[in-house]
Amino acid sequence: MIYQQQFSYSTQGRGTYNLCSQLEKHIRDSRITTGICTVFIHHTSASLIITENADATVRTDLETIMQRLAPDGDPAYRHDYEGDDDMSAHIRCVLTNDSLTIPVTKGQSALGTWQGVYLYEHRTSHFNRKLTVTIIGE
Amino acid sequence: MIYQQQFSYSTQGRGTYNLCSQLEKHIRDSRITTGICTVFIHHTSASLIITENADATVRTDLETIMQRLAPDGDPAYRHDYEGDDDMSAHIRCVLTNDSLTIPVTKGQSALGTWQGVYLYEHRTSHFNRKLTVTIIGE
Amino acid sequence: MIYQQQFSYSTQGRGTYNLCSQLEKHIRDSRITTGICTVFIHHTSASLIITENADATVRTDLETIMQRLAPDGDPAYRHDYEGDDDMSAHIRCVLTNDSLTIPVTKGQSALGTWQGVYLYEHRTSHFNRKLTVTIIGE
Repeated sequence: MIYQQQFSYSTQGRGTYNLCSQLEKHIRDSRITTGICTVFIHHTSASLIITENADATVRTDLETIMQRLAPDGDPAYRHDYEGDDDMSAHIRCVLTNDSLTIPVTKGQSALGTWQGVYLYEHRTSHFNRKLTVTIIGE
Repeated sequence: MIYQQQFSYSTQGRGTYNLCSQLEKHIRDSRITTGICTVFIHHTSASLIITENADATVRTDLETIMQRLAPDGDPAYRHDYEGDDDMSAHIRCVLTNDSLTIPVTKGQSALGTWQGVYLYEHRTSHFNRKLTVTIIGE
Repeated sequence: MIYQQQFSYSTQGRGTYNLCSQLEKHIRDSRITTGICTVFIHHTSASLIITENADATVRTDLETIMQRLAPDGDPAYRHDYEGDDDMSAHIRCVLTNDSLTIPVTKGQSALGTWQGVYLYEHRTSHFNRKLTVTIIGE
Protein backbone atom coordinates (compact mmCIF):
# COMPACT_ATOMS: atom_id res chain seq x y z
CA MET A 1 0.00 0.00 0.00
CA ILE A 2 1.09 3.52 -0.85
CA TYR A 3 -0.31 6.76 0.51
CA GLN A 4 0.92 10.10 -0.80
CA GLN A 5 -0.23 13.62 -0.04
CA GLN A 6 1.19 17.06 -0.57
CA PHE A 7 0.72 19.66 2.13
CA SER A 8 1.97 23.14 2.86
CA TYR A 9 3.21 25.04 5.88
CA SER A 10 3.38 28.82 6.28
CA THR A 11 6.57 29.81 8.06
CA GLN A 12 6.89 33.09 9.98
CA GLY A 13 10.65 33.61 9.77
CA ARG A 14 13.76 31.63 10.66
CA GLY A 15 13.17 28.88 13.18
CA THR A 16 11.76 25.42 13.78
CA TYR A 17 8.12 24.36 13.32
CA ASN A 18 6.83 21.09 14.77
CA LEU A 19 5.30 18.79 12.12
CA CYS A 20 4.40 15.85 14.37
CA SER A 21 0.63 16.34 14.51
CA GLN A 22 0.39 16.66 10.70
CA LEU A 23 2.46 13.51 10.22
CA GLU A 24 0.40 11.50 12.70
CA LYS A 25 -2.78 12.58 10.92
CA HIS A 26 -1.38 11.44 7.56
CA ILE A 27 -0.32 8.09 9.06
CA ARG A 28 -3.84 7.58 10.47
CA ASP A 29 -5.42 8.56 7.14
CA SER A 30 -3.17 6.10 5.29
CA ARG A 31 -4.46 3.17 7.41
CA ILE A 32 -0.96 1.70 7.13
CA THR A 33 0.07 -0.02 10.36
CA THR A 34 3.62 -1.22 9.55
CA GLY A 35 6.04 0.47 7.17
CA ILE A 36 7.83 3.76 6.64
CA CYS A 37 6.75 7.38 6.47
CA THR A 38 8.94 9.64 4.32
CA VAL A 39 8.57 13.41 4.34
CA PHE A 40 10.18 15.56 1.65
CA ILE A 41 10.46 19.35 1.43
CA HIS A 42 10.40 20.85 -2.06
CA HIS A 43 12.78 23.75 -1.32
CA THR A 44 16.49 24.52 -0.99
CA SER A 45 16.28 27.13 1.78
CA ALA A 46 14.13 25.28 4.33
CA SER A 47 14.83 21.76 5.55
CA LEU A 48 13.78 18.97 7.92
CA ILE A 49 15.32 17.78 11.19
CA ILE A 50 14.56 15.49 14.10
CA THR A 51 15.72 16.86 17.44
CA GLU A 52 14.80 17.04 21.13
CA ASN A 53 11.21 18.15 21.68
CA ALA A 54 11.26 18.84 25.43
CA ASP A 55 13.47 21.85 26.04
CA ALA A 56 13.22 24.67 23.51
CA THR A 57 16.76 25.87 24.32
CA VAL A 58 18.03 22.86 22.34
CA ARG A 59 16.70 24.54 19.23
CA THR A 60 18.02 27.95 20.31
CA ASP A 61 21.51 26.48 20.71
CA LEU A 62 21.24 24.60 17.41
CA GLU A 63 20.50 27.95 15.74
CA THR A 64 23.58 29.48 17.43
CA ILE A 65 25.79 26.75 15.97
CA MET A 66 24.16 26.92 12.53
CA GLN A 67 24.97 30.64 12.43
CA ARG A 68 28.62 29.75 13.07
CA LEU A 69 28.79 26.96 10.49
CA ALA A 70 26.96 28.90 7.78
CA PRO A 71 27.16 32.60 8.64
CA ASP A 72 24.68 35.04 7.12
CA GLY A 73 26.26 37.56 4.73
CA ASP A 74 29.69 35.93 4.76
CA PRO A 75 32.04 38.07 2.62
CA ALA A 76 33.18 34.89 0.81
CA TYR A 77 29.72 34.28 -0.72
CA ARG A 78 29.17 35.14 -4.36
CA HIS A 79 25.46 34.22 -4.27
CA ASP A 80 23.57 36.96 -2.39
CA TYR A 81 20.70 38.00 -4.71
CA GLU A 82 18.07 37.59 -2.02
CA GLY A 83 20.04 39.04 0.89
CA ASP A 84 22.33 37.97 3.70
CA ASP A 85 20.24 34.89 4.55
CA ASP A 86 20.17 33.54 0.98
CA MET A 87 23.38 31.52 0.69
CA SER A 88 23.49 30.62 4.40
CA ALA A 89 20.03 29.04 3.96
CA HIS A 90 21.26 26.86 1.08
CA ILE A 91 24.24 25.65 3.15
CA ARG A 92 22.06 24.87 6.19
CA CYS A 93 19.83 22.76 3.93
CA VAL A 94 22.81 20.74 2.69
CA LEU A 95 23.98 20.19 6.30
CA THR A 96 20.51 19.06 7.44
CA ASN A 97 17.86 17.05 5.48
CA ASP A 98 15.63 17.32 2.41
CA SER A 99 13.77 14.22 3.56
CA LEU A 100 13.23 12.12 6.67
CA THR A 101 12.32 8.43 6.85
CA ILE A 102 10.52 7.37 10.03
CA PRO A 103 9.26 3.86 10.82
CA VAL A 104 5.50 3.36 11.15
CA THR A 105 4.64 0.79 13.83
CA LYS A 106 1.14 -0.12 15.08
CA GLY A 107 -0.37 2.65 12.97
CA GLN A 108 1.77 5.44 14.46
CA SER A 109 5.15 7.03 13.85
CA ALA A 110 7.68 5.14 15.95
CA LEU A 111 9.45 8.29 17.13
CA GLY A 112 11.39 8.11 20.38
CA THR A 113 9.95 9.87 23.44
CA TRP A 114 12.17 12.93 22.98
CA GLN A 115 12.16 13.08 19.20
CA GLY A 116 10.29 15.88 17.47
CA VAL A 117 10.07 16.35 13.69
CA TYR A 118 10.65 19.95 12.66
CA LEU A 119 10.51 22.01 9.51
CA TYR A 120 13.56 24.27 9.82
CA GLU A 121 12.97 27.58 8.04
CA HIS A 122 16.35 29.15 7.26
CA ARG A 123 15.12 32.36 5.61
CA THR A 124 14.27 35.36 7.80
CA SER A 125 10.97 36.28 6.09
CA HIS A 126 7.67 34.44 5.60
CA PHE A 127 7.29 31.58 3.13
CA ASN A 128 4.69 29.05 2.09
CA ARG A 129 6.60 25.75 2.14
CA LYS A 130 5.41 22.71 0.19
CA LEU A 131 6.02 19.17 1.49
CA THR A 132 5.10 15.65 0.37
CA VAL A 133 4.46 12.76 2.72
CA THR A 134 4.67 9.23 1.28
CA ILE A 135 3.76 6.27 3.48
CA ILE A 136 4.59 2.75 2.29
CA GLY A 137 3.57 -0.40 4.12
CA GLU A 138 0.74 -2.72 4.94
CA MET B 1 6.74 -7.45 1.47
CA ILE B 2 7.58 -5.60 4.66
CA TYR B 3 9.83 -6.74 7.48
CA GLN B 4 10.21 -4.66 10.64
CA GLN B 5 12.08 -5.35 13.85
CA GLN B 6 13.22 -3.26 16.76
CA PHE B 7 16.61 -3.98 18.30
CA SER B 8 18.86 -2.38 20.86
CA TYR B 9 22.55 -1.66 21.20
CA SER B 10 24.45 -0.97 24.43
CA THR B 11 27.01 1.76 23.88
CA GLN B 12 30.08 2.14 26.09
CA GLY B 13 30.77 5.84 25.67
CA ARG B 14 31.34 8.23 22.77
CA GLY B 15 32.41 6.54 19.57
CA THR B 16 31.33 4.45 16.59
CA TYR B 17 29.84 0.93 16.74
CA ASN B 18 29.63 -1.23 13.62
CA LEU B 19 26.07 -2.38 12.86
CA CYS B 20 26.76 -4.33 9.65
CA SER B 21 26.43 -7.86 11.02
CA GLN B 22 23.07 -7.05 12.70
CA LEU B 23 21.74 -5.48 9.50
CA GLU B 24 22.83 -8.45 7.35
CA LYS B 25 21.09 -10.81 9.75
CA HIS B 26 17.85 -8.80 9.54
CA ILE B 27 18.07 -8.76 5.73
CA ARG B 28 18.52 -12.55 5.67
CA ASP B 29 15.64 -13.02 8.13
CA SER B 30 13.39 -10.82 5.97
CA ARG B 31 13.90 -13.11 2.92
CA ILE B 32 13.67 -9.95 0.81
CA THR B 33 16.07 -10.10 -2.15
CA THR B 34 15.49 -6.73 -3.87
CA GLY B 35 14.46 -3.52 -2.14
CA ILE B 36 15.60 -1.12 0.55
CA CYS B 37 16.69 -1.49 4.16
CA THR B 38 16.04 1.54 6.37
CA VAL B 39 17.50 1.84 9.86
CA PHE B 40 16.20 4.43 12.32
CA ILE B 41 17.57 5.41 15.74
CA HIS B 42 15.02 6.52 18.33
CA HIS B 43 17.24 9.09 20.07
CA THR B 44 18.50 12.66 19.70
CA SER B 45 22.00 12.18 21.14
CA ALA B 46 23.17 9.15 19.14
CA SER B 47 23.01 8.89 15.35
CA LEU B 48 23.85 6.79 12.30
CA ILE B 49 26.59 7.21 9.70
CA ILE B 50 28.16 5.33 6.82
CA THR B 51 31.92 5.80 6.58
CA GLU B 52 35.14 3.99 5.69
CA ASN B 53 35.45 0.63 7.43
CA ALA B 54 39.10 -0.18 6.73
CA ASP B 55 41.25 2.29 8.66
CA ALA B 56 40.05 3.19 12.17
CA THR B 57 41.88 6.53 12.04
CA VAL B 58 39.13 7.75 9.70
CA ARG B 59 36.73 7.59 12.63
CA THR B 60 39.30 9.14 14.99
CA ASP B 61 39.69 12.09 12.62
CA LEU B 62 35.94 12.37 12.15
CA GLU B 63 35.63 12.68 15.94
CA THR B 64 38.29 15.43 15.93
CA ILE B 65 36.30 17.44 13.41
CA MET B 66 32.98 16.81 15.17
CA GLN B 67 34.51 18.26 18.34
CA ARG B 68 35.37 21.38 16.39
CA LEU B 69 31.98 21.76 14.72
CA ALA B 70 29.97 21.04 17.89
CA PRO B 71 32.27 21.66 20.88
CA ASP B 72 31.43 20.13 24.25
CA GLY B 73 30.56 22.67 26.92
CA ASP B 74 30.54 25.64 24.57
CA PRO B 75 29.88 28.82 26.62
CA ALA B 76 27.18 29.81 24.10
CA TYR B 77 24.96 26.83 24.98
CA ARG B 78 21.90 27.41 27.15
CA HIS B 79 20.97 23.70 27.24
CA ASP B 80 23.42 21.89 29.56
CA TYR B 81 21.23 19.96 32.03
CA GLU B 82 23.03 16.68 31.41
CA GLY B 83 26.57 18.05 31.20
CA ASP B 84 29.09 19.29 28.68
CA ASP B 85 28.28 16.55 26.15
CA ASP B 86 24.50 17.18 26.18
CA MET B 87 24.01 19.96 23.62
CA SER B 88 27.00 18.93 21.51
CA ALA B 89 25.38 15.49 21.14
CA HIS B 90 22.13 17.03 19.84
CA ILE B 91 24.04 19.12 17.27
CA ARG B 92 26.09 16.13 16.08
CA CYS B 93 22.82 14.23 15.54
CA VAL B 94 21.43 17.03 13.37
CA LEU B 95 24.66 17.12 11.33
CA THR B 96 24.63 13.33 10.80
CA ASN B 97 21.61 10.97 10.36
CA ASP B 98 18.56 9.70 12.24
CA SER B 99 18.03 7.12 9.52
CA LEU B 100 19.90 5.43 6.69
CA THR B 101 18.43 3.89 3.54
CA ILE B 102 20.55 1.17 1.92
CA PRO B 103 19.64 -0.85 -1.18
CA VAL B 104 19.09 -4.58 -0.77
CA THR B 105 20.32 -6.55 -3.79
CA LYS B 106 20.48 -10.33 -4.16
CA GLY B 107 19.41 -10.75 -0.54
CA GLN B 108 22.23 -8.63 0.92
CA SER B 109 22.90 -4.99 1.70
CA ALA B 110 24.50 -3.46 -1.39
CA LEU B 111 27.14 -1.54 0.57
CA GLY B 112 30.32 -0.58 -1.23
CA THR B 113 33.53 -2.44 -0.31
CA TRP B 114 34.72 0.31 2.03
CA GLN B 115 31.36 1.31 3.49
CA GLY B 116 30.61 0.47 7.09
CA VAL B 117 27.36 1.33 8.89
CA TYR B 118 27.95 2.76 12.35
CA LEU B 119 25.91 3.79 15.33
CA TYR B 120 27.63 7.01 16.47
CA GLU B 121 27.23 7.47 20.23
CA HIS B 122 27.74 11.15 21.05
CA ARG B 123 27.31 10.98 24.84
CA THR B 124 30.32 10.10 26.99
CA SER B 125 28.58 7.59 29.27
CA HIS B 126 26.83 4.24 28.62
CA PHE B 127 23.40 4.04 27.00
CA ASN B 128 21.00 1.42 25.75
CA ARG B 129 20.06 2.65 22.27
CA LYS B 130 16.89 1.50 20.50
CA LEU B 131 16.77 1.13 16.71
CA THR B 132 14.20 -0.04 14.16
CA VAL B 133 15.05 -1.76 10.90
CA THR B 134 12.38 -1.80 8.17
CA ILE B 135 13.03 -3.73 4.96
CA ILE B 136 10.71 -3.24 1.99
CA GLY B 137 10.91 -5.23 -1.23
CA GLU B 138 10.25 -8.54 -2.86
CA MET C 1 6.29 -2.70 -7.50
CA ILE C 2 10.06 -2.45 -7.14
CA TYR C 3 12.54 -1.24 -9.74
CA GLN C 4 16.27 -1.36 -9.04
CA GLN C 5 19.22 -0.53 -11.27
CA GLN C 6 22.86 0.15 -10.69
CA PHE C 7 24.55 2.84 -12.75
CA SER C 8 27.90 4.59 -12.78
CA TYR C 9 29.14 8.13 -13.20
CA SER C 10 32.66 9.21 -14.19
CA THR C 11 33.70 12.25 -12.18
CA GLN C 12 36.37 14.65 -13.41
CA GLY C 13 37.59 16.07 -10.10
CA ARG C 14 36.02 17.76 -7.09
CA GLY C 15 32.67 19.33 -7.77
CA THR C 16 28.96 18.73 -8.34
CA TYR C 17 27.43 16.67 -11.18
CA ASN C 18 23.72 16.91 -11.99
CA LEU C 19 21.97 13.52 -11.86
CA CYS C 20 18.42 14.68 -12.68
CA SER C 21 18.19 13.41 -16.25
CA GLN C 22 19.43 9.92 -15.24
CA LEU C 23 16.94 9.77 -12.38
CA GLU C 24 14.02 10.85 -14.58
CA LYS C 25 14.94 8.16 -17.09
CA HIS C 26 14.97 5.49 -14.36
CA ILE C 27 11.60 6.70 -13.05
CA ARG C 28 10.13 6.49 -16.58
CA ASP C 29 11.65 3.02 -17.10
CA SER C 30 10.17 1.83 -13.79
CA ARG C 31 6.61 2.73 -14.93
CA ILE C 32 5.92 3.61 -11.29
CA THR C 33 3.61 6.63 -11.03
CA THR C 34 3.31 7.11 -7.23
CA GLY C 35 5.95 6.23 -4.67
CA ILE C 36 9.54 7.02 -3.74
CA CYS C 37 12.83 7.04 -5.61
CA THR C 38 15.92 6.36 -3.47
CA VAL C 39 19.43 6.87 -4.80
CA PHE C 40 22.44 5.46 -2.98
CA ILE C 41 26.16 6.04 -3.64
CA HIS C 42 28.47 3.11 -2.88
CA HIS C 43 31.46 5.22 -1.74
CA THR C 44 32.76 7.13 1.29
CA SER C 45 34.49 9.99 -0.55
CA ALA C 46 31.69 11.12 -2.89
CA SER C 47 28.14 11.90 -1.76
CA LEU C 48 24.71 13.14 -2.82
CA ILE C 49 23.02 16.50 -2.25
CA ILE C 50 19.95 18.41 -3.35
CA THR C 51 20.57 22.12 -3.82
CA GLU C 52 19.62 25.11 -5.96
CA ASN C 53 19.91 24.39 -9.67
CA ALA C 54 19.60 27.89 -11.10
CA ASP C 55 22.70 29.85 -10.12
CA ALA C 56 25.99 27.94 -10.23
CA THR C 57 27.53 30.28 -7.62
CA VAL C 58 25.42 28.49 -5.00
CA ARG C 59 27.58 25.42 -5.56
CA THR C 60 30.78 27.52 -5.64
CA ASP C 61 29.88 29.01 -2.26
CA LEU C 62 28.92 25.61 -0.87
CA GLU C 63 32.39 24.38 -1.84
CA THR C 64 33.95 27.39 -0.04
CA ILE C 65 32.14 26.50 3.18
CA MET C 66 32.89 22.76 2.85
CA GLN C 67 36.60 23.65 2.65
CA ARG C 68 36.23 25.51 5.93
CA LEU C 69 34.27 22.78 7.72
CA ALA C 70 36.48 19.93 6.51
CA PRO C 71 39.82 21.44 5.43
CA ASP C 72 42.11 19.50 3.09
CA GLY C 73 45.36 18.41 4.69
CA ASP C 74 44.42 19.51 8.18
CA PRO C 75 47.43 18.90 10.50
CA ALA C 76 45.08 17.16 12.98
CA TYR C 77 44.29 14.32 10.55
CA ARG C 78 45.93 10.95 11.10
CA HIS C 79 44.38 9.39 7.97
CA ASP C 80 46.18 10.79 4.90
CA TYR C 81 47.24 7.75 2.85
CA GLU C 82 45.72 9.05 -0.34
CA GLY C 83 46.68 12.71 0.06
CA ASP C 84 45.35 15.98 1.40
CA ASP C 85 41.84 15.39 0.03
CA ASP C 86 41.46 11.90 1.56
CA MET C 87 40.17 12.58 5.08
CA SER C 88 38.39 15.80 4.12
CA ALA C 89 36.40 13.78 1.57
CA HIS C 90 35.28 11.29 4.24
CA ILE C 91 34.12 14.13 6.53
CA ARG C 92 32.23 15.88 3.71
CA CYS C 93 30.41 12.59 3.04
CA VAL C 94 29.33 12.32 6.67
CA LEU C 95 28.08 15.94 6.62
CA THR C 96 26.09 15.40 3.39
CA ASN C 97 24.23 12.23 2.20
CA ASP C 98 24.88 8.63 1.19
CA SER C 99 21.32 8.39 -0.06
CA LEU C 100 18.42 10.62 -1.08
CA THR C 101 14.71 9.77 -1.00
CA ILE C 102 12.56 11.75 -3.44
CA PRO C 103 8.80 11.35 -3.94
CA VAL C 104 7.58 10.07 -7.31
CA THR C 105 4.30 11.70 -8.35
CA LYS C 106 2.48 11.30 -11.68
CA GLY C 107 5.41 9.26 -13.03
CA GLN C 108 8.03 11.93 -12.36
CA SER C 109 10.30 12.99 -9.51
CA ALA C 110 8.42 15.58 -7.47
CA LEU C 111 11.42 17.89 -7.11
CA GLY C 112 10.74 21.55 -6.44
CA THR C 113 11.39 24.03 -9.26
CA TRP C 114 14.79 25.03 -7.89
CA GLN C 115 15.91 21.63 -6.64
CA GLY C 116 18.69 19.82 -8.46
CA VAL C 117 20.08 16.42 -7.47
CA TYR C 118 23.87 16.32 -7.53
CA LEU C 119 26.61 13.79 -7.12
CA TYR C 120 29.22 15.67 -5.06
CA GLU C 121 32.72 14.39 -5.83
CA HIS C 122 35.01 15.30 -2.93
CA ARG C 123 38.29 13.87 -4.29
CA THR C 124 40.39 16.02 -6.60
CA SER C 125 41.13 13.33 -9.21
CA HIS C 126 38.91 11.26 -11.55
CA PHE C 127 36.78 8.39 -10.29
CA ASN C 128 34.18 6.00 -11.60
CA ARG C 129 31.37 6.23 -9.05
CA LYS C 130 28.78 3.47 -8.64
CA LEU C 131 25.20 4.27 -7.62
CA THR C 132 21.97 2.31 -7.13
CA VAL C 133 18.51 3.68 -7.78
CA THR C 134 15.56 1.85 -6.16
CA ILE C 135 12.01 2.97 -6.96
CA ILE C 136 9.13 1.64 -4.89
CA GLY C 137 5.48 2.33 -5.60
CA GLU C 138 2.58 1.56 -7.86
